[in-house]
Amino acid sequence: MTKQAIMTQIYLIRHGIAVERNEDIKDETRPLTDKGRQKTTEIGQKLGEMGVKFDIILSSPLVRAWETAEILQKAKLSEKISEFAPLAPGGSLQAWVNWWLNSCYNKDEHSLALVGHQPDLGEWAELLIWGSSRDKITVKKAGIIGLTLPQTVTPIGQGELFLLTSPKWLL
Amino acid sequence: MTKQAIMTQIYLIRHGIAVERNEDIKDETRPLTDKGRQKTTEIGQKLGEMGVKFDIILSSPLVRAWETAEILQKAKLSEKISEFAPLAPGGSLQAWVNWWLNSCYNKDEHSLALVGHQPDLGEWAELLIWGSSRDKITVKKAGIIGLTLPQTVTPIGQGELFLLTSPKWLL
Repeated sequence: MTKQAIMTQIYLIRHGIAVERNEDIKDETRPLTDKGRQKTTEIGQKLGEMGVKFDIILSSPLVRAWETAEILQKAKLSEKISEFAPLAPGGSLQAWVNWWLNSCYNKDEHSLALVGHQPDLGEWAELLIWGSSRDKITVKKAGIIGLTLPQTVTPIGQGELFLLTSPKWLL
Repeated sequence: MTKQAIMTQIYLIRHGIAVERNEDIKDETRPLTDKGRQKTTEIGQKLGEMGVKFDIILSSPLVRAWETAEILQKAKLSEKISEFAPLAPGGSLQAWVNWWLNSCYNKDEHSLALVGHQPDLGEWAELLIWGSSRDKITVKKAGIIGLTLPQTVTPIGQGELFLLTSPKWLL
């Protein structure tokens, strides 16, 4: 395989259903609901049955995302899991690009899960694929955006979309 | 519901697996293979189980697309089915927009299936969603692109993507 043919598969996964915002809990610490855990577990099982594997799961540090990431790891989709602050709401895609260039560029890690939030995940996907964001990709809770990135030091606008799905369509 | 809230759901569906191009058959008349019929039938059943209904299925007149459309109709996804020449390869999205304005604008038809070909379906989706096409959406055979369009006389660039899936991910 030539270097040009190496693609990174990136699965942008939104956290599962979490408890509603309320005055008694900080947004950052809202956990998944029982239904959120259940659906996310089913998504993890389905991905496992399909043979999906990640070299690493990067997760927003917010509790609802981190719990989602842990469920995916428990489904044996990845050995590695790591908090990644730029995946928090309003985080920086460029920070992730820098991580990707350091961690994946010309290396053997070619399947990544990024667990985070809306509208950020849709915006990141649009930026990676089309180079600009217009809030045109809606990913549901525990839903997945799948895109491929070629080996390039300037990945913005170079991606291709291969998947946009949700528990309704996947389970 | 206000008029502004009325959305058309559009499912761009690629034909199933067809017999390979060869000298003995015109491209226009290539039929689905047995495997293509089987996968397309399973997709139709799955959509039926999910409660998906189309007000009409429009199909490219090419045999592999028309056979796909007929299979979807036999799965009871739509009462109406119609050949639509602009869905043939290289066809005009503007011709479809004109049809949509005549047939759907401010009317009660809000769920459409368009059966056709690549790269056209991906290009149509990009044009409807982002207003320009860069070949960034890959839809597999018997795969589906789902987008919503608001009620507008200028739908180009106004759509939102809610689904991109394939038999691998849907079945």
